[in-house]
Amino acid sequence: MNNDKTAPYAFGMVGLGTMGRNLLLNMADNGFAVTGYDKSEKMIQIFEEDGKAHNLKGFSDIKEFVQSLQTPRTVILLVPAGPIVDSVILELEPLLDKGDIIIDSGNSHFTDTSRRSLELKDKGLHFFGMGISGGEEGARFGPSLMPGGDKKAYAVVKDMLEAVSAKVNGDPCVTYIGPGASGHFVKMTHNGIEYAIMELLAETYEILKNGLNYDNQQIQKVFDDWNKGRLQSFLMEITKDVFLFKDVKTGNLLVDEIKDEAKSKGTGKWTSQVAMDIEVPIPTIDAAVSTRNLSKLKTLRVALGEAFGPSSPIKTEGDFIAHLEETFYFAMVAAYAQGMHLLTQASIEYKYELNLAEIAKIWRGGCIIRAEFLEDIYQAYSKNPELAHLYADPAIQAKIKQSLKGTRTVVSAAVEAGIGIPAFASALTYFDTLKTGRMPSNLTQAQRDFFGAHTFERIDSEGIFHADWNQKND
Amino acid sequence: MNNDKTAPYAFGMVGLGTMGRNLLLNMADNGFAVTGYDKSEKMIQIFEEDGKAHNLKGFSDIKEFVQSLQTPRTVILLVPAGPIVDSVILELEPLLDKGDIIIDSGNSHFTDTSRRSLELKDKGLHFFGMGISGGEEGARFGPSLMPGGDKKAYAVVKDMLEAVSAKVNGDPCVTYIGPGASGHFVKMTHNGIEYAIMELLAETYEILKNGLNYDNQQIQKVFDDWNKGRLQSFLMEITKDVFLFKDVKTGNLLVDEIKDEAKSKGTGKWTSQVAMDIEVPIPTIDAAVSTRNLSKLKTLRVALGEAFGPSSPIKTEGDFIAHLEETFYFAMVAAYAQGMHLLTQASIEYKYELNLAEIAKIWRGGCIIRAEFLEDIYQAYSKNPELAHLYADPAIQAKIKQSLKGTRTVVSAAVEAGIGIPAFASALTYFDTLKTGRMPSNLTQAQRDFFGAHTFERIDSEGIFHADWNQKND
Repeated sequence: MNNDKTAPYAFGMVGLGTMGRNLLLNMADNGFAVTGYDKSEKMIQIFEEDGKAHNLKGFSDIKEFVQSLQTPRTVILLVPAGPIVDSVILELEPLLDKGDIIIDSGNSHFTDTSRRSLELKDKGLHFFGMGISGGEEGARFGPSLMPGGDKKAYAVVKDMLEAVSAKVNGDPCVTYIGPGASGHFVKMTHNGIEYAIMELLAETYEILKNGLNYDNQQIQKVFDDWNKGRLQSFLMEITKDVFLFKDVKTGNLLVDEIKDEAKSKGTGKWTSQVAMDIEVPIPTIDAAVSTRNLSKLKTLRVALGEAFGPSSPIKTEGDFIAHLEETFYFAMVAAYAQGMHLLTQASIEYKYELNLAEIAKIWRGGCIIRAEFLEDIYQAYSKNPELAHLYADPAIQAKIKQSLKGTRTVVSAAVEAGIGIPAFASALTYFDTLKTGRMPSNLTQAQRDFFGAHTFERIDSEGIFHADWNQKND
Repeated sequence: MNNDKTAPYAFGMVGLGTMGRNLLLNMADNGFAVTGYDKSEKMIQIFEEDGKAHNLKGFSDIKEFVQSLQTPRTVILLVPAGPIVDSVILELEPLLDKGDIIIDSGNSHFTDTSRRSLELKDKGLHFFGMGISGGEEGARFGPSLMPGGDKKAYAVVKDMLEAVSAKVNGDPCVTYIGPGASGHFVKMTHNGIEYAIMELLAETYEILKNGLNYDNQQIQKVFDDWNKGRLQSFLMEITKDVFLFKDVKTGNLLVDEIKDEAKSKGTGKWTSQVAMDIEVPIPTIDAAVSTRNLSKLKTLRVALGEAFGPSSPIKTEGDFIAHLEETFYFAMVAAYAQGMHLLTQASIEYKYELNLAEIAKIWRGGCIIRAEFLEDIYQAYSKNPELAHLYADPAIQAKIKQSLKGTRTVVSAAVEAGIGIPAFASALTYFDTLKTGRMPSNLTQAQRDFFGAHTFERIDSEGIFHADWNQKND
């Protein structure tokens, strides 16, 4: 490995948009000499202006940019996922030397990362896919980082990544994730969990607003209270803040002025699609993905709302808000459990050698799904690295049992009232099905053999069987 | 187009397995001179023996096989989906002439069909992807056929396909579906609906068995009764038969001896994955796919069953079986509605020009999802070819309204009892969300803008907006 520290800069960034710029400034704050490349002179100006207190420089010439880096060179990409990543790599590759490192920090699909990693390996270059979460704020002041790639090459960037990452109890929110595209796979799964939690928050809002007829202040108070307890999380925190934020134009709460059509960038969808490929059930994440798509059908929804009428008020019994908190807890556990389960299976499928305790640990800070509950997940996988599923952890089992009655009360009440709760319902039916030792899937197998001769297995003997179902034998 | 009728055979089949053989014999029964090609001499022997009353012949030499066909030649493939289709095409292609037709009747992924179609078009060959449903019985005595490809070339095979297909009220269960891969897309969607209906039948079994403590005879009677009413369908029919079929080895009902781990061949998964790509919510099909995957986690399920205990008996009120029938009806409508909605969107997305009334019509017979209810779907789309969704049809709306109370009763009772009903619950939450004129997705958009600056739209003005949410302004 080439090792020359005479060039002026330790790390370089391609792409000086907000994310790239903020991450570079974060690195500069931590004492690293950094440089950036962007085609736009304006972006370079903003970068140099924002970082004028530091030893940094921007280039609009990619050759000069590369030459300004100490070897082995580390070039981080923060450009839009997709073909742009490939074209940047194509530009960089002839300028780099063996042993240099490219880190793609965008939200690339893990199969692209896998392909690029293999292509660049052939050329002696190390390619890292690094998930980064925490948004623009996170990038600037401490994100959660999920780098995957060659383990030896990780040593080159370890200190820097640990310095810039968020910290929880002094521990950096970054760790070496695993080989190949594991970093991007883990980040994708993070986003899948994020989709599910956001959908649960939306459904909670729906229950409070249309089921209990709460006004925005009352809704805000519920989220605020919950954020002080075991449901504390970044998403809960910003949700309570959303319900305080006034629109300067109308004086109303801004949330009421926003269209009810949810957009998405695709990472949730990828999570569901891949989970189906490797046969891991993640129905609560699936429900979040399909519900975002459903929200886009505004015209149809309005027409059907008129045809079928609105939902009814929820008939509350006991302390309904306490039950709702239990329901949220229960469904939140399901969402994280499904994500962790996906990682468990992906680790086998793609040989990622994931350390689930470490992943839970680095998600405790910096990232969008950081939450009090991640401490429990961290503990569960620390105690038992071979844990098959979060539901199998005794401490979490005890908490689920306490939440079950409230969850059943809330889900059945919402179902009776006609309030749309796809994610809450899916979390409960997931749990109920997963704790069914003997499922009715024997019927499914009988049917498949009946109409398609797809064969079946028996409980009393090994082998593959087929029956001539059409021959009546009763 | 070359047109020479001097060769002995009108249609040829590559692949003389049960499906291919049966379809050829069906064609021979209908007076067509047919020939088959297979590498296995044994398969050829079986074919010629089964069809000895007819004018037919088997070849193990592909050149002789092709030469025995009248031009323009029609070669049907019934080989396993995947690379084998490509290798067969590669063998056939140099032997064929411009204007000849290849029909892939396997369960190929529609994107493969699309690719093959374009590749062969360049060479002057017509490529059809033809979905075929009805299993081995259907192939032999009348399947439902879904051919997609060049409209003019369809004229060559129209009479034969209509002759061999199933008939309902004299109408053949085949129609020209549309261009490109539309035939395979429609067949895939058929299978997605099939997954959902099968899962609903399994969940009904679970409710009857563990919720109501019914024995197999009582369960059989429920399915038998339902099959005489509006729930009449092929799948209902075989389900009631499954509960009559005795295992010769043990004397018990065979269904009780079958493992509760459902297998799948991937078409349901494809449906869910594609629906996510083109942003159509089909949560009940998704739930069927993820529940099959869940069923494979036997060891985990048994362990969690011990940890959390079994489900409770259902507290029934009123005529619970009548309510359950309403629930099945309601969820079945959701499954078909989601499938038809997917076709509506795919028709736009891929320019398939699908005629949904015609598709419902050809599904009424021959195929696995044939059902009394398809007549209602056929009527709905005949009356209004632009129908945005089945739920928007007034006649179906009226029937849904009658089933709603019973559905809410059953779903909430199962939820309270802890019986796993992912597909039933998803059907209801899908409906409830889709009839919500104002969804809580405004919160989702606010959150996305808060942490990721993803912007939002407003209800009171056009454009794209961003707010500085971190700046407290209350």
